[in-house]
Amino acid sequence: MSVKHNVLVVGLGAVGAIYSYVLKRGGNTQVTCVARSNYEATLADGIHIRSRVYGDIPGWKPDRLCRTVKDAADTSYSYVLLTTKSLPDIVPTAAILEPLLSRDYVAKGPLPVFVFVQNGLEVERDVYDAIKGLNVGEPKIISTALWIGTNLLPGNVISHVMASQERLSAGIYRPSFSPDVKNSPEEALILQEFAALFKGTDNKVTVLDEVQRVKFKKNFWNAGLGSSSALTRYPLPAFFREETVEKIVVPQLRAIMQEILSIGRAMGFDENALPSSVVEETIESTARIHKKPDSTHRASILIDLENGRPMELEVVVGVLVRKAKELRVEIPRLELIYSYLYLIQQQILAGKK
Amino acid sequence: MSVKHNVLVVGLGAVGAIYSYVLKRGGNTQVTCVARSNYEATLADGIHIRSRVYGDIPGWKPDRLCRTVKDAADTSYSYVLLTTKSLPDIVPTAAILEPLLSRDYVAKGPLPVFVFVQNGLEVERDVYDAIKGLNVGEPKIISTALWIGTNLLPGNVISHVMASQERLSAGIYRPSFSPDVKNSPEEALILQEFAALFKGTDNKVTVLDEVQRVKFKKNFWNAGLGSSSALTRYPLPAFFREETVEKIVVPQLRAIMQEILSIGRAMGFDENALPSSVVEETIESTARIHKKPDSTHRASILIDLENGRPMELEVVVGVLVRKAKELRVEIPRLELIYSYLYLIQQQILAGKK
Repeated sequence: MSVKHNVLVVGLGAVGAIYSYVLKRGGNTQVTCVARSNYEATLADGIHIRSRVYGDIPGWKPDRLCRTVKDAADTSYSYVLLTTKSLPDIVPTAAILEPLLSRDYVAKGPLPVFVFVQNGLEVERDVYDAIKGLNVGEPKIISTALWIGTNLLPGNVISHVMASQERLSAGIYRPSFSPDVKNSPEEALILQEFAALFKGTDNKVTVLDEVQRVKFKKNFWNAGLGSSSALTRYPLPAFFREETVEKIVVPQLRAIMQEILSIGRAMGFDENALPSSVVEETIESTARIHKKPDSTHRASILIDLENGRPMELEVVVGVLVRKAKELRVEIPRLELIYSYLYLIQQQILAGKK
Repeated sequence: MSVKHNVLVVGLGAVGAIYSYVLKRGGNTQVTCVARSNYEATLADGIHIRSRVYGDIPGWKPDRLCRTVKDAADTSYSYVLLTTKSLPDIVPTAAILEPLLSRDYVAKGPLPVFVFVQNGLEVERDVYDAIKGLNVGEPKIISTALWIGTNLLPGNVISHVMASQERLSAGIYRPSFSPDVKNSPEEALILQEFAALFKGTDNKVTVLDEVQRVKFKKNFWNAGLGSSSALTRYPLPAFFREETVEKIVVPQLRAIMQEILSIGRAMGFDENALPSSVVEETIESTARIHKKPDSTHRASILIDLENGRPMELEVVVGVLVRKAKELRVEIPRLELIYSYLYLIQQQILAGKK
């Protein structure tokens, strides 16, 4: 392909850095990154990528580095990838992207495709609404579910440990769920063009007709396992290594995830969209990994909590609590988990011990 | 009174020390204490009591100090006060008191009255069963609910901050609950004689016909508030100071305590034995204390957890979970709380981070 796509990546953490690098490897893009905490370090020395897939790339830099989205909003982009943590209780995503969502900006060029590379549910909603409000046509938003094993370490080092290929499942964001929806020809084209950016890289993009079910399914782990790890403040091996503990705690993990499943059913995800087996599969795959003596993974929500940083609570658990209330589904365990983590989140934000 | 009662106090923590001191003030007792972690310090320099009620008493010592219950079992006692933490999952109380529960020991003199000065439910059961097994008549066990504000600080200092009078509610331990039970003349005498030990002290003992309802009522705080403080790892002011947090977390505290109430009902505590108002009263009295800027109290279960010491989990929460299972009461929140704290307890016991 000869066309260079102008891509903006907002958030130069572990995921943003790996995706910026992968897009450059695709050879078809010009990449601008907005870095926040690591702007100075990246400007001076670049990012040090240590990847099991791509090898060691010391001092890697994108084509352009900006300190703010406002600084980056001086030109048009085909794609805007959002790779920040999703913290709508602190700053709504539409506010982060505001310089790209103004009438002035969209008057200057075609509307970019916004790609959400974030965990959690309904992370796209406020940006969708903001674009709708501009009256410049249907928003082009791609929602994704991502499997990646990467962390930003001190010294601006990106550790990228997933040995097999990355997986990114992508679909058009639609504000409501409909089980049998198919992509329109226009939607299919948006997704194909996005997937084409990764051709020739080791990163596989799977194009879906309906992505919300995949994001919802992925959230079983975050809302059930991640939250439990945060509340106990023990990483997941503590849940599975001793039979006495496993016997007490695994039935509770199952019960939490049954609550999530019942919310999904009330939202319209039928057995086909969201198989009941997701509960046991999530438990079994997690147990398999964390029974191994070399398991050192810590859930990101636990890492955030331990470091006194805000957690992705609202898009992982809060959204479920609100859905359940709206749809009158009983979720005593998730409500309790949410209230405890909400208390902790507020204390973290207030800087209190 | 002229008779000197021989009293053994097992456990020379904050509660044991204050009660040993108070019993001596009563003037009618000879006090032997079994100290564990602070035996050497107490033998050398005594205990340093700093009390809002009794003033500063540096270097206070009981009449006799023993390192073990076995060492103390060389003589007969009228009363054995148990003031240790109740941790049946680590060592059953009957095992701690075993030297006093042997055929040899009871052959030497009359059976002592065992007085349980411990939080939690059914803490008396295994000792009751052990005495029953000796076939020396009905066990004489006094069960109590205690309100005291005291802590053991480094340097063998007892801080005793409750400004008003101590309160100890005492009744005969009976292994099953019966709502309208009255003390038999013999039972009434056991309790009166025990209360008489405190005559002339500032410590008030209230004699009850039925004490389990009071212990059950007190457990609303420990199982509902204490456990929530432990799981969030924030002291209780964090629950009540900000309206946003209070709005989310207090309905959950209420829901947890409604679960405790429903267990109580299934156990036979009717509205008269256990008024439903206990839920709001527990919340309101706690909010009243912890909304004050000078509130520094930390629930003992939180202190234990923070210091990596075992928590009184089984007698505070575990007993409720087992009761609910037996009586088929649905308690999703308490089950979840128990499973998380059980996991933490096992990691503490295994010395794992």
